[in-house]
Amino acid sequence: MFEIDFKFEDPFMLESGEEIRPLDLRCTIYGTLNADRSNAVLVFHALTGSSRIAEWWSDILGEELGLDTSKYAFVCVNYLGSCYGSTSAELLSKRANSRKKRLPVITARDIVRTNFKLLEYLGIKKLKALVGGSVGGMLALQFAADHPEYAEKCVAIGATPLSSMGLALNHLQRQALRVNDIEMARKIAMISYKSAEFFDSRFSRNPNRNDESPASDHDCRFDVAGYLDYQGDIFNRRFDSESYKLITKVMDLFELSDDEIGRIRAEVSLIGISSDWLFPAQDVEKFDKKLCSFGVSSNFIKLESDDGHDAFLSDPEKMNEILNGVIGEKLRAGQGI
Amino acid sequence: MFEIDFKFEDPFMLESGEEIRPLDLRCTIYGTLNADRSNAVLVFHALTGSSRIAEWWSDILGEELGLDTSKYAFVCVNYLGSCYGSTSAELLSKRANSRKKRLPVITARDIVRTNFKLLEYLGIKKLKALVGGSVGGMLALQFAADHPEYAEKCVAIGATPLSSMGLALNHLQRQALRVNDIEMARKIAMISYKSAEFFDSRFSRNPNRNDESPASDHDCRFDVAGYLDYQGDIFNRRFDSESYKLITKVMDLFELSDDEIGRIRAEVSLIGISSDWLFPAQDVEKFDKKLCSFGVSSNFIKLESDDGHDAFLSDPEKMNEILNGVIGEKLRAGQGI
Repeated sequence: MFEIDFKFEDPFMLESGEEIRPLDLRCTIYGTLNADRSNAVLVFHALTGSSRIAEWWSDILGEELGLDTSKYAFVCVNYLGSCYGSTSAELLSKRANSRKKRLPVITARDIVRTNFKLLEYLGIKKLKALVGGSVGGMLALQFAADHPEYAEKCVAIGATPLSSMGLALNHLQRQALRVNDIEMARKIAMISYKSAEFFDSRFSRNPNRNDESPASDHDCRFDVAGYLDYQGDIFNRRFDSESYKLITKVMDLFELSDDEIGRIRAEVSLIGISSDWLFPAQDVEKFDKKLCSFGVSSNFIKLESDDGHDAFLSDPEKMNEILNGVIGEKLRAGQGI
Repeated sequence: MFEIDFKFEDPFMLESGEEIRPLDLRCTIYGTLNADRSNAVLVFHALTGSSRIAEWWSDILGEELGLDTSKYAFVCVNYLGSCYGSTSAELLSKRANSRKKRLPVITARDIVRTNFKLLEYLGIKKLKALVGGSVGGMLALQFAADHPEYAEKCVAIGATPLSSMGLALNHLQRQALRVNDIEMARKIAMISYKSAEFFDSRFSRNPNRNDESPASDHDCRFDVAGYLDYQGDIFNRRFDSESYKLITKVMDLFELSDDEIGRIRAEVSLIGISSDWLFPAQDVEKFDKKLCSFGVSSNFIKLESDDGHDAFLSDPEKMNEILNGVIGEKLRAGQGI
């Protein structure tokens, strides 16, 4: 693994028209780029992830694994506005050329352009594949539309334009940020990342493991409540409110136009998770049909799991099978996992 | 319709051991009690409802309707701790005999006892039926368990002990109340009362109808977000935080023991709404099977609707058919609507 912090001194123009200067981008690379730099896979992290793939896909990245470091080099760039090495949301507000010095709106296309800038800098002219889950899947698809000749394959897991329910959930999370409650934002997000089945099997109606008796007092919780509070607490220490606001907006706005879909040349694999209610599998399947209707070579794969949206992070066995199958060309069209 | 405000001067002992004195109960009655007072139906309102059934079941209560006022008298009592006429949560804290003067925890059994007290006072010794949706359904079932010989039938719509996901959603709502944000609590509740299908068909990915362009600014919303904000705003003006805290806890704690189930003698009808994700239809069906396994005469009815949990309020046509069928004995076992 090696990590590079780039600083671009040229102004970087956002889709909104605002210019950012300078632009910092952190990039992490796993595996070895071959001599002609033709074995790279561009990976996109999720909402609160970083460019360090090994930190969130530890059982998927490695020799002989789904992201096989003995064959490919995996490149990941921290998102513009995130808080893990690239220009942070706070700095974006300060560095934007508008007089308002407010947080600019950025789009999937903006983030794709930062990734493309880095590939150019690294001399990578072709990609074996684009891979991402959740907002990372949106970005993989956006990259495939914006740079049609670049990537052979595009794997998007649990990703479609957000449904109305998804927009509602993101809205509530940002509303929580207004009263500076990033813990609440995370807790709302957590229920959307998990499934009813997961909660029932893991927490059921058990009292909080901290010996609380829910019937005894209004402050005494059930186990699932203690879990959510814990998740909110640890998140508060590792993520930034402004970055959260910025990237959930990227998710909200992602929606490929017909023209954009028509430009895609990569072989697309859309993975729908059976218990995902944030990006329901049937929505992913519908999106796959839409891509096909525009002539895209798209393939829908159903991942059977009770873990909800999070299955792409929590079920390495199935993810390895899918990624190996798609990138290593071992999976047949229409096959489920 | 007539409405009565009762004041009981005797101490009312809660399951927690705390005593409330005096106890105020507001009761509303629609239709006419017959001479031997044998035609009463006890109705339970939902979390934020009142004893005025006509205000939330306006198209269901009336002559020849599901709650047929030409045949029956419909009695509804505002919940202890609610804010529509009975002893409010704020007064509960003040009137509790404990030195702490904190909000006591109340249970479904406590609320059932307030209802029973009123029936005794009104000289009603038999009930034609118990009817309620959501927490009202929980209370109907609790009443059927606590007073087995009292009611012929019990109709509970979208009601089972809360799943782990349901507990999580209630927890988040109460967490919002900690920072005094009852609007946020309501917005979280609203997403659980509706379904993805409902949101998609009503709001899709449309921008807020107030001419906002979501891409232009972080404060500009999609339509579904504007809707949720509006719902939070109107709720803030009509409901009380402490009552909310109290009654969501009643929901959390509801869980009939095997002994309680075994005591039920009423004919039970459990209605599951096909798109309800707060009380999924399959959970209602599973609960029906559990009741049957304890010898209860229970019947599961599926209500097909895209409206989510709220369908029991938003789909009067189907509710009329169900209530007419069950109370008027026109529906056969196993029949769906």
